[in-house]
Amino acid sequence: MSRLISQEAARLAPYTPGEQPRDQQYIKLNTNESPYPPAPGVLAALAGAERERLELYSDPTCAALTQAAADFYGLEPDQVIAGNGSDELLSFAFRAFCGAGRGPVYADITYGFYKVWAQFYGLEPTVIPLREDFSLAVDDYLDARGTIFLANPNAPTGIALPTGEIRRLLEADRARLVVVDEAYVDFGAESCVPLIRDYDNLLVVQTFSKSRSLAGGRIGLAMGERALIDDLNRVKYSFNPYNVNRLSIAAGAAAMADRAYFERCTQAVARTREYTTEQLRALGFTVLPSKANFIFAKTECLGGKELYRRLKERGILVRHFDQPARITDYCRISIGSPKQMEALLAAIRALLEESEKEA
Amino acid sequence: MSRLISQEAARLAPYTPGEQPRDQQYIKLNTNESPYPPAPGVLAALAGAERERLELYSDPTCAALTQAAADFYGLEPDQVIAGNGSDELLSFAFRAFCGAGRGPVYADITYGFYKVWAQFYGLEPTVIPLREDFSLAVDDYLDARGTIFLANPNAPTGIALPTGEIRRLLEADRARLVVVDEAYVDFGAESCVPLIRDYDNLLVVQTFSKSRSLAGGRIGLAMGERALIDDLNRVKYSFNPYNVNRLSIAAGAAAMADRAYFERCTQAVARTREYTTEQLRALGFTVLPSKANFIFAKTECLGGKELYRRLKERGILVRHFDQPARITDYCRISIGSPKQMEALLAAIRALLEESEKEA
Repeated sequence: MSRLISQEAARLAPYTPGEQPRDQQYIKLNTNESPYPPAPGVLAALAGAERERLELYSDPTCAALTQAAADFYGLEPDQVIAGNGSDELLSFAFRAFCGAGRGPVYADITYGFYKVWAQFYGLEPTVIPLREDFSLAVDDYLDARGTIFLANPNAPTGIALPTGEIRRLLEADRARLVVVDEAYVDFGAESCVPLIRDYDNLLVVQTFSKSRSLAGGRIGLAMGERALIDDLNRVKYSFNPYNVNRLSIAAGAAAMADRAYFERCTQAVARTREYTTEQLRALGFTVLPSKANFIFAKTECLGGKELYRRLKERGILVRHFDQPARITDYCRISIGSPKQMEALLAAIRALLEESEKEA
Repeated sequence: MSRLISQEAARLAPYTPGEQPRDQQYIKLNTNESPYPPAPGVLAALAGAERERLELYSDPTCAALTQAAADFYGLEPDQVIAGNGSDELLSFAFRAFCGAGRGPVYADITYGFYKVWAQFYGLEPTVIPLREDFSLAVDDYLDARGTIFLANPNAPTGIALPTGEIRRLLEADRARLVVVDEAYVDFGAESCVPLIRDYDNLLVVQTFSKSRSLAGGRIGLAMGERALIDDLNRVKYSFNPYNVNRLSIAAGAAAMADRAYFERCTQAVARTREYTTEQLRALGFTVLPSKANFIFAKTECLGGKELYRRLKERGILVRHFDQPARITDYCRISIGSPKQMEALLAAIRALLEESEKEA
């Protein structure tokens, strides 16, 4: 830190993104990217007219992208806002819908950025522990005061809530906003987008980084009733109006337009997840029931940090979290291609044999 | 606004970007874009390898881009941070270097976003009026307490300060940060980047939207002593770590690498500016002495709003600001291609004839 930093900024506790090493070719199963390239139409869009107009500002309303998203979901374009990744939109939601006396409410084990944004905006969070089995019980949230942020499926557990449960939460207090972070919803969980027409206290946030194979394009969406989207635009125009560049707008619109490719990729990931889960369980692993493009798994034979470390030695990156204590035995493993997962399983079998010999 | 917006967000007063109309082909002289396409290497970079890896996150450190900028300026890469446009980095600077008891200090007439960010972060600004002739007098800032934000050249006046004056400000109080917003510096003003080695209380912010012909790519830079860049990274990693997408990193690096093209374009804009200024003065306009890629001009024959309106009717967009009162007679006119400026001059000649007949 410099001697000139403000006291407020000195107190920030930044997020640590997953490793992006450049020193070696790893099998990267640590940041939940897609093993598949973007839809073919994305490359075509990038070779198109937008490339010829880069000297002109991008459309601050991102109309081509919000229209494509609206078409996909049967919404109106003014029920959608696009962002520079869903992280930017979640941050805007913290700014728009939390404040003094109205902090964010979230689980103790969930997307690690929620607590960072709470600090970024000087908010008092309410943290509600997951149950013993890592499930999120809606009953624990019914009386919570503030703005609720739910990752569904949750990260890093992968466990999903049925929309009926979220509906129950929305009904419990119509004067309370529920933000559902659906970063991982497309791999087998139920989206809350269809509930938007019934609930003006629901905001759904999605990302193109997982199911749309565009992590490198930095595109996110938030969807909800018009007035909520107006509020987010109010924040966006107070922060960075031209927040999505021309090429990402074009790429995102093209990705949204190809439903068949999207379904093929997400279904393939779900199949690979089920296969990997079975194989790991056969090797004695505990694997939480995931609906995401990752699994959260542990073995009695090796600590979580040790598993991470030994896999990295073998050229495979997974993600380990040092805290909270009750997840330190686990590793979060992204679902890669079938070939990558076979390499993971082979490495794990070898590690288990090694550790048996050591014992 | 929704019924669920926070009190804090309801108080925001968002920035109004220049019009981006889609209903008609205008000669767009309202948002200070470049009339020239990006360097040829930019299109080549976009057709290159990054396009094939869009399913993977972009490098959160933007190493290729910060290295290219460091090479251009003779800095080290850790003296540079890249952003999603310079607006994002300026916003980060407000967060990193202002706080309670240490508000931002800026001119009454300057980039309109400074006051928006002050409100976004709940800061108390100190606003210092420009002198009668719209010049910024460093003497007025020597005793100011807070973090100083100077646009140099200033917007929308186009008037530049020599770096000697900024050096005087840096010397006056080494415990006070001066942020120099050099969005428009490349068209004939002096950059403060060479002062970075001497002053650890200097941060320089630049954009690719003007002199690098990449407004649609959304790329900005901040440069300063390592510890200041660390502080900005602290904010970035508390807000949106993957803030620049893969294609913009590649495009920005390629734009930085072609110094000859950059100099050709910026010099051409400066020549067109001088020509346009002479022509307008010959038509009786008052034109402030601009070093930017726009001019700020008024005529006695028509009010600023009326000039804006009548030019728009003729298919030419310029920018008019409703306040403060002492600039409402002016319009800000971006410097386009020579052909676009001839069209502007022809339209203005016709308007002046019309208004003479009316009188």
